[in-house]
Amino acid sequence: PSIMFRKYQWLLKNIDTDSEVISGVQEEDYWELISTTRIRIVSFILQNIKIQRTKENLHDLIKKKVFETAFPLHERENLGAFLKMNWARWRDILYTQPIEQIRTYFGEKVALYFAWLGWYTCILFVAAVPGIILAIYGLISFNSSQISKEICAANTTMMCPLCDQKCPFWPLSETCTYAQVTHLLDNEGTVLFAIFMAVWATVFLELWKRKRAEVVSNWKLYLWDEEEEELAMELINSPETASPLHQHSYIRSTVVLILVGLMICVIIGIAHALVIYRVVVTVIFTQSGSEFFRERASTMAVMTGAVLHYLTIIIMSKVNRHVALYLCDMEKPRTFTEREKNFTVKLFTFQFFTHFSSVIYVAFFLGRINGRPGDYVRVGGKWRLEECHPSGCLVDLFIQMAVIMTLKQTLSNFVEFMLPWIRYKYKLLFRNPKSNNRVHMEESARDPCKEEWLWNYNLNEVNVFSLFDEFLEMMIQYSFTTIFVAAFPLAPLLAFINNLIEIRLDAIKMVRLQRRMVPRTANDIGTWLLILEAIGILAVIGNGMVIAITSDFIPMQVYKYTSSPCIQKNYTGIDCLTGYVNYSLSVFNVQDFANHENLPERKDPMGNVITHCRYRDYRNNEDYSHTVEFWHILAARLSFLILFEHVALCIKLIAAWFVPDVPRGIKNLHLQEKRERLLKRLRRMDDSTEV
Amino acid sequence: PSIMFRKYQWLLKNIDTDSEVISGVQEEDYWELISTTRIRIVSFILQNIKIQRTKENLHDLIKKKVFETAFPLHERENLGAFLKMNWARWRDILYTQPIEQIRTYFGEKVALYFAWLGWYTCILFVAAVPGIILAIYGLISFNSSQISKEICAANTTMMCPLCDQKCPFWPLSETCTYAQVTHLLDNEGTVLFAIFMAVWATVFLELWKRKRAEVVSNWKLYLWDEEEEELAMELINSPETASPLHQHSYIRSTVVLILVGLMICVIIGIAHALVIYRVVVTVIFTQSGSEFFRERASTMAVMTGAVLHYLTIIIMSKVNRHVALYLCDMEKPRTFTEREKNFTVKLFTFQFFTHFSSVIYVAFFLGRINGRPGDYVRVGGKWRLEECHPSGCLVDLFIQMAVIMTLKQTLSNFVEFMLPWIRYKYKLLFRNPKSNNRVHMEESARDPCKEEWLWNYNLNEVNVFSLFDEFLEMMIQYSFTTIFVAAFPLAPLLAFINNLIEIRLDAIKMVRLQRRMVPRTANDIGTWLLILEAIGILAVIGNGMVIAITSDFIPMQVYKYTSSPCIQKNYTGIDCLTGYVNYSLSVFNVQDFANHENLPERKDPMGNVITHCRYRDYRNNEDYSHTVEFWHILAARLSFLILFEHVALCIKLIAAWFVPDVPRGIKNLHLQEKRERLLKRLRRMDDSTEV
Repeated sequence: PSIMFRKYQWLLKNIDTDSEVISGVQEEDYWELISTTRIRIVSFILQNIKIQRTKENLHDLIKKKVFETAFPLHERENLGAFLKMNWARWRDILYTQPIEQIRTYFGEKVALYFAWLGWYTCILFVAAVPGIILAIYGLISFNSSQISKEICAANTTMMCPLCDQKCPFWPLSETCTYAQVTHLLDNEGTVLFAIFMAVWATVFLELWKRKRAEVVSNWKLYLWDEEEEELAMELINSPETASPLHQHSYIRSTVVLILVGLMICVIIGIAHALVIYRVVVTVIFTQSGSEFFRERASTMAVMTGAVLHYLTIIIMSKVNRHVALYLCDMEKPRTFTEREKNFTVKLFTFQFFTHFSSVIYVAFFLGRINGRPGDYVRVGGKWRLEECHPSGCLVDLFIQMAVIMTLKQTLSNFVEFMLPWIRYKYKLLFRNPKSNNRVHMEESARDPCKEEWLWNYNLNEVNVFSLFDEFLEMMIQYSFTTIFVAAFPLAPLLAFINNLIEIRLDAIKMVRLQRRMVPRTANDIGTWLLILEAIGILAVIGNGMVIAITSDFIPMQVYKYTSSPCIQKNYTGIDCLTGYVNYSLSVFNVQDFANHENLPERKDPMGNVITHCRYRDYRNNEDYSHTVEFWHILAARLSFLILFEHVALCIKLIAAWFVPDVPRGIKNLHLQEKRERLLKRLRRMDDSTEV
Repeated sequence: PSIMFRKYQWLLKNIDTDSEVISGVQEEDYWELISTTRIRIVSFILQNIKIQRTKENLHDLIKKKVFETAFPLHERENLGAFLKMNWARWRDILYTQPIEQIRTYFGEKVALYFAWLGWYTCILFVAAVPGIILAIYGLISFNSSQISKEICAANTTMMCPLCDQKCPFWPLSETCTYAQVTHLLDNEGTVLFAIFMAVWATVFLELWKRKRAEVVSNWKLYLWDEEEEELAMELINSPETASPLHQHSYIRSTVVLILVGLMICVIIGIAHALVIYRVVVTVIFTQSGSEFFRERASTMAVMTGAVLHYLTIIIMSKVNRHVALYLCDMEKPRTFTEREKNFTVKLFTFQFFTHFSSVIYVAFFLGRINGRPGDYVRVGGKWRLEECHPSGCLVDLFIQMAVIMTLKQTLSNFVEFMLPWIRYKYKLLFRNPKSNNRVHMEESARDPCKEEWLWNYNLNEVNVFSLFDEFLEMMIQYSFTTIFVAAFPLAPLLAFINNLIEIRLDAIKMVRLQRRMVPRTANDIGTWLLILEAIGILAVIGNGMVIAITSDFIPMQVYKYTSSPCIQKNYTGIDCLTGYVNYSLSVFNVQDFANHENLPERKDPMGNVITHCRYRDYRNNEDYSHTVEFWHILAARLSFLILFEHVALCIKLIAAWFVPDVPRGIKNLHLQEKRERLLKRLRRMDDSTEV
């Protein structure tokens, strides 16, 4: 108990006494912000001070249980006054955030996070509108779509079985409903929308840079230099100790590079393992003795696969964090900022692969590396790979995205909010009496103050990575929203809704459920900007590939301009895509199945024996080699990809040039300031020469 | 005459008196450099000062012929002492340059140019070595090349005529020699070399950044700020006048963007016009009455085309300059630096297209958009487009590159050096007597001094763009060296040799033939770094496209892995490319020529009548539509391009990360400096609080 008390005293004492030291080194602008600056300095000193005898610092002492914890206190009146007013409350979901107040209370770093998040949410709205329009257009027009009509009418077109065991031949018309969903995505609008989103991502970044310049300029932090501040802190703390130097070694870089590569391989390997797990488990269930398992084999496999996937993501997130931290320490970063920067890039890369490798598999590999009927690619020579959804591979991607953007987001928001809440309530219920007792054992002169401390103590712990996690979450969301937007135009809308909630969740969490963070100064969002730019480029590649490879947009265009009725002279008034469904299906002779004797039921709905089945590919029906159409379409897909990438990147480049990073007004302001500073110096010189 | 004298006096007076003003505003480090700084300040004041009555500045007065010119003087002892010693002399071609001395004499900007050029030349040597090895490997192995052998032996394979008029059928074996040249370029080594060059370009940039950091840090200009200096100059000149503000308007940006687009279209249009000129002129010459013209039609067309091309480049260079200047002024840049930056980007873009559009045509379009025998694409329905060189389109590119890298470079160096030299000699011969007379008419007390002035006056004029032009020339060379290096591996070697000469040429020109430049401070090479980076990316795209589209590398691989004897079981010990030549040629039935009655001689060397001829394409011999092979190869080409681009860009990215921009030592140095500055401030504060 006395230890806890000592800790509080420490905190208080330091806050009161150090302010004089601060004032000289920091710029005069800092005066107004004194409370956050104070906390920062005290925290720095606490972290770095060493006890003379044992050379232990605070971190060691907390480890040794001498202190339990150290954290800055909330200020109730501030909390109540402006934050809750129109920020940390659910009903204010559409209000603008009081960035200035957040800054004075939580420091610049947190304020910038909220400013960024608010801005991102605003801009998401701009992207959500065309997304909705595209979806509505798809919905309206799908009745008139020639392809859906043909698919729905094709009840005599028998398709080849989708798996080895117990899968029947099936009429194409079964996929009628999903064909309409596909049409929702697979129209010309999608290409435009994808280009729009590529430009949107760039413009978003540029506008954010402007916004940031404005905000930071208001705070007079434009020329602020993180390195300088850290040096200043070190000097205040102890002017004698030399600050650590930059370190760099090519060997270390190489090792880190190789380890990062290995880690990425492991993550991708896990995704592959999951795919193989599903394939194998389906077969095992089908062949198992139990009737129950046999019936639900494929569903069971998918369900357990999904659960496993979720578990791997959770476990890998923890593993990634440790690996990234380990690699960071290996690089021996000089300062905390540098460490954070390295950590950010590494952890984001790992998390990106963890979250995306399965989506990438679904988008670009699922069903494309399966071989053909009669000669399927088999894992270990035995298990046939999964096929795409009967209605096309885009549907798989669509479903995957829909699940991620709705279920997973909701779930993770819920967990993120409820976990601290439950922990807080738990502490209140079970710990309070105990610690109350302890406190009551001592004489307590200033009761209200101590009560405050206890209230603070009972809140959830925060660490330096709390804000980092919020950012990481948003970046993963941003990646999903932009990279596969061509497959799921509603992604911006869902992200928008999620973010409206997210802002308030984070606000409430910070104000009511967590201890106050050590405020930190910042004049930009740091490495995250770099990551946003990288995602912007990946978005161009990703969307290009979805349109070129996953969707049927290109084959349709090729059909339209090479073999559709439109280009023949006599035909008029017929939809150009008439016959496309037939064109896109190859014929397989059932006799060529290796085990064609023990195939499932071989009657079609009309009762005729099935001699041929169809499958999605472009092969001839003799030796099943690829036809001219196959190569033609492949060439078209690749040309489209190249064209799309280069055009979209050019547009991005021009957009980035077109919108200046810093608004003119702010530039002029800085110019003016610089000029005045120089003028002052000139006058001082004149004075001194005159005297 | 009195005007001239006044001008000199002006110069002298200002140099002597202004030094006091300088000292205060500039950092104390500037003291040592006083002569260049002095000149700069005087020049600035001269440029900006206005005569009270008429509001005219120096520029107006020179226009009005009140002054003839204004320039700083050379210092003979400096010139003689260190520059000529081991820099501006031919025999010192391999010595390192005395960058420090250049800096103290010509200012930082010129010194950085020479530092960059020297560094570039060093690094070119690294690229030249594998280029030479590749060429030697090609030379050694071309006797064993299966394809050359087959082509040389194919004297019964009759090829279709290359033009409409008077072109005969020709046996494939005619191109035997060139087939060997092609082999020199078209081997697996080229792909590796292209990737190597992509990485080379990145590493070059990164190493230059390190080098620059070192150099600039030695000069103590690391934190120097151009904007601040300009403001300081303005303040020294007249502390009252407000400095101009930043301006920006989206409408202006849009107009500039559109105009730049138009200009690029015009430039590309000119290149097209030249192509059509050649096509049309060939036909006109062939059909002309004169025997002489008819015989040499194609040669004449190519020769006049080349001359025209050279003329357009010269004319367009001037036009581009004016357009770029005009567009720059339209954007209303605030300062000279900003103006230079805008101008650089625009002029480089224009010059790039002027120089490259014809090379791009040769590399990617020539011979690919010609249709097929019997159905050629014709300009205006009449004139058939040019065909590639009989031995393949890569040879055209190779020849073009060889001409540019040897002839054109030599020529432009020669012109660049001789023009000032002749002008100087001319002035000495014709002007000297006259101006000598004038001077003698006045009383001349300090004769040696005046003699100096006269010597300086007779040297060639320099303007602010002199250095700019040198940079521009080097950038165009760098573009040629990197972007099409896959077609001409000797480019780095030739550029290396050229640069060795170029350094000394520039040095001699500056020291002996031109007036001294107004020294300018700089701490990097400015926009050129950006352009170098852009060229680095273009190089990846360019080389990828040359290998994928221009060369026969991909078709050979496709042949090897799909239909060569190697993949058949029985064949062993046969070169995998056996039969490739036959595979790559399509068959055309001579009967299908529209005008097959009046075709040229239709006997092959054996005396048989030709019924079929061959042409380079993949079409079937019935309806001449593209075969599976065509689409297969096209798909392979495009996949290769995509793969190459992404892999090369990834490697570039990793290389850029791997090599830090600033060496560790320098980083630590700056850290130390910063720390000491802060420490000093802290002590000062302590002192003041104690007192």
